Amino acid sequence: MLNEDVMRAAMQEYIDAFNRDDVEAIIALYADDATVEDPVGSEPKRGIAEISDFYRMAIKTGAKLSLSAPIRCSHGNAAAMAFEVRLQLEQGPSLIRVIDVMTFAKDGRFASMQAYWGPSDLTPA
Amino acid sequence: MLNEDVMRAAMQEYIDAFNRDDVEAIIALYADDATVEDPVGSEPKRGIAEISDFYRMAIKTGAKLSLSAPIRCSHGNAAAMAFEVRLQLEQGPSLIRVIDVMTFAKDGRFASMQAYWGPSDLTPA
Repeated sequence: MLNEDVMRAAMQEYIDAFNRDDVEAIIALYADDATVEDPVGSEPKRGIAEISDFYRMAIKTGAKLSLSAPIRCSHGNAAAMAFEVRLQLEQGPSLIRVIDVMTFAKDGRFASMQAYWGPSDLTPA
Repeated sequence: MLNEDVMRAAMQEYIDAFNRDDVEAIIALYADDATVEDPVGSEPKRGIAEISDFYRMAIKTGAKLSLSAPIRCSHGNAAAMAFEVRLQLEQGPSLIRVIDVMTFAKDGRFASMQAYWGPSDLTPA
């Protein structure tokens, strides 16, 4: 399994990069052939080009992330974290309660991301 | 997708059943051909017989669960939750920080469970 400190640091950097509007830093966390399923149940983005488009859109919403509890690792190449997203949607300032699960490539970059949040996890903020 | 209230209620019942030492209620939440990977990175338990053995052991540790944040759903047949487990291990009273991801069968029972926690998520309590 990947070193837990490596996985935890990458998860934390994902949060921190969002909070400084650093879309290039977010994209740099992903492997070239990674997938992003956000929310779980939607069609995944496949590959770094689609993933880059997705995060350029996300950053435009002004999304700011705050951990709800410490990041969890695993006994494999995967980690998970619960957080809240505050962002600007058409309907106004909003909050989404999310759990992200990342799997990791051997080089420590994200191989996949799955974001667990449903319609009921989105509320006015 | 499955109704979010149905998924959220099953996740909450999992927590509550643990906290009343009701192993039969935990097992009843699972489909007959379900899988349990706890922790992620270990060999999954497959089918209700292996799953029952696993939870009979778990209940013997006195494990008590408390949510760290509200349960998250998804736009598919899946939900996730962050919680803490307090339990008695050989080395003494212990705490494990966990995120569980469940997928659901059409009848609302768990088709799979994956528990994200690594060695560094286990501490003396």
